[in-house]
Amino acid sequence: MMKYIILRNRPEGKPSLKDFGTKETEKPQPGEGEILLKALYVSVDPYLRGRMRDEKSYIPPFKLNEPMESMVVPEVEDSKNENFSKGDFVSGMLDWQEYQVSDGKGLNKINKDIAPLSAYLGILGLTGITAYLGLEKIGKLKEGETLLVSGAAGAVGSIVGQIGKIKKCKVVGIAGSDEKIKKITKVFKFDEGINYKTTDNIKEEIKKACPNGVDVYFDNVGGEMLDAAILNMNKFGRVVNCGAISLYNSKEKPTGLRLEPFLIKKSILMQGFTVRDYAEDFQPAIKQLSKWLKEDKLQYEETIVEGFEKIPQAFLDLFEGKNQGKMVVKV
Amino acid sequence: MMKYIILRNRPEGKPSLKDFGTKETEKPQPGEGEILLKALYVSVDPYLRGRMRDEKSYIPPFKLNEPMESMVVPEVEDSKNENFSKGDFVSGMLDWQEYQVSDGKGLNKINKDIAPLSAYLGILGLTGITAYLGLEKIGKLKEGETLLVSGAAGAVGSIVGQIGKIKKCKVVGIAGSDEKIKKITKVFKFDEGINYKTTDNIKEEIKKACPNGVDVYFDNVGGEMLDAAILNMNKFGRVVNCGAISLYNSKEKPTGLRLEPFLIKKSILMQGFTVRDYAEDFQPAIKQLSKWLKEDKLQYEETIVEGFEKIPQAFLDLFEGKNQGKMVVKV
Repeated sequence: MMKYIILRNRPEGKPSLKDFGTKETEKPQPGEGEILLKALYVSVDPYLRGRMRDEKSYIPPFKLNEPMESMVVPEVEDSKNENFSKGDFVSGMLDWQEYQVSDGKGLNKINKDIAPLSAYLGILGLTGITAYLGLEKIGKLKEGETLLVSGAAGAVGSIVGQIGKIKKCKVVGIAGSDEKIKKITKVFKFDEGINYKTTDNIKEEIKKACPNGVDVYFDNVGGEMLDAAILNMNKFGRVVNCGAISLYNSKEKPTGLRLEPFLIKKSILMQGFTVRDYAEDFQPAIKQLSKWLKEDKLQYEETIVEGFEKIPQAFLDLFEGKNQGKMVVKV
Repeated sequence: MMKYIILRNRPEGKPSLKDFGTKETEKPQPGEGEILLKALYVSVDPYLRGRMRDEKSYIPPFKLNEPMESMVVPEVEDSKNENFSKGDFVSGMLDWQEYQVSDGKGLNKINKDIAPLSAYLGILGLTGITAYLGLEKIGKLKEGETLLVSGAAGAVGSIVGQIGKIKKCKVVGIAGSDEKIKKITKVFKFDEGINYKTTDNIKEEIKKACPNGVDVYFDNVGGEMLDAAILNMNKFGRVVNCGAISLYNSKEKPTGLRLEPFLIKKSILMQGFTVRDYAEDFQPAIKQLSKWLKEDKLQYEETIVEGFEKIPQAFLDLFEGKNQGKMVVKV
């Protein structure tokens, strides 16, 4: 027998444990061309909240009473597929089940000699890939430019800033506490940090920290910080619109400064970035991130919770800020 | 003696005649390597409003009490430069003066057998080049897509829509009178037109006119029409931010819907477009536009005002929508 975790209710407002259920069923057997996977590490991420809603979106919503899914690192326990061998480690978008079968499509083999398996859900997973490809595909960051990052102490933001330093850029981060500012400058080696909670003129703070103007703004928060960044941008500046967490909880339609006159004046590009749009670029991204990791050029943090049945609680803890860096469940 | 037109005041809000002045001075004489130019046609354009402000920008602001400038088609009246002969027609960024000398740099010779001289300020000038390169470089319009254009009856907008039809796209235009709507659908062959002045729900009108959603929005106006367009865009939609005439004369910093959540949700690109950034692409653009013009695939309109001293009034009339197509002053 084996356990799996289902969505029981679609929560209104904040989710709670009663919205999830743990069930048991027979351990599945792989058919011809299939492999049997045993889950080792499961990623929990804020964006999964969106899929708990019954809304039309580009990622379909979770179905009630069926297993939820996220990025998982399993071991291949049995293989009837010539591309995989027993003992292989892989990563992929998989169900919250202790065991499952797969035809292997969409799975990537991973190498635990490069980094611990859990890293493939963080710095070598969608988190790191988002930072890397956001900067590559939209930011097009060049050596010597000035990079501004919001949500700078977060899982994505902290990698963005470190990549900026690898590319020999001036890197300035925005975050919401002195502790976080200390972390981004001391641990992640950003050049400067701005605590937006202790200034009433974020635009001026950015100007002071970026005397040559901002060339690339990697935005995880949206809202007033985006306005302040745009007002400090150089000609041909680029904004990677990766997240807008400052607006996600507002009930009214949020309003703010009209940005199009500034886009025109400075030939600025703003583009929404969703990492799933770039699936064909994941392998080169992972390769580059692995190389930097081996060279000790990237630092990362993770919070590892133990126990398959702890997945729902770990997910809920994300919204209480109980994690430091990437939140992962070890099965 | 000859006349020239200066900027007398920097207007707050809407400019008026008192912000301009007409002066007289000696007719200049060309030195060695120089040519004497006699202005024949002068372009007036909304973007000049921006240069009346004393703001740091990529194009420097006009100086008080000095001649304003724009694209001008002059005749070479005297030449001490081996590259030009008396009787040549050229186009270039030149002062608002009846006569001026030039070293010839930045001037293009033009051929009046291909199109009338005034067309080199419109469809074969920056207007046509803006439409063509905006769609090529930022819009990346593909056959079968849906193209939405604001300021659709204007000089740039009417060319944008016609290029969309040449590229076999569905083309919908937004304009401010039934007469203009009739023109874009009958003369310029847009598929549909929306009169924004007779609807109180522009978003719904766009939805009705674009049942497959909007792939490219060529924006000449900014503001609420931009919001409505974004709300109707498809995944991977592109916005060419070419103008924001609805905001240029506002005194306050204009506000509106925050757009970044929509950019993220649909992976939308917005980019400020200034034709001057693409100077190396002007010649191929003019070549393509001339070809289409000869093949009778492009129609254009112009409003020609006569008299050098009418330049300021012609410029002011742009903001009242008094022009049909490209506004040009015949000296």
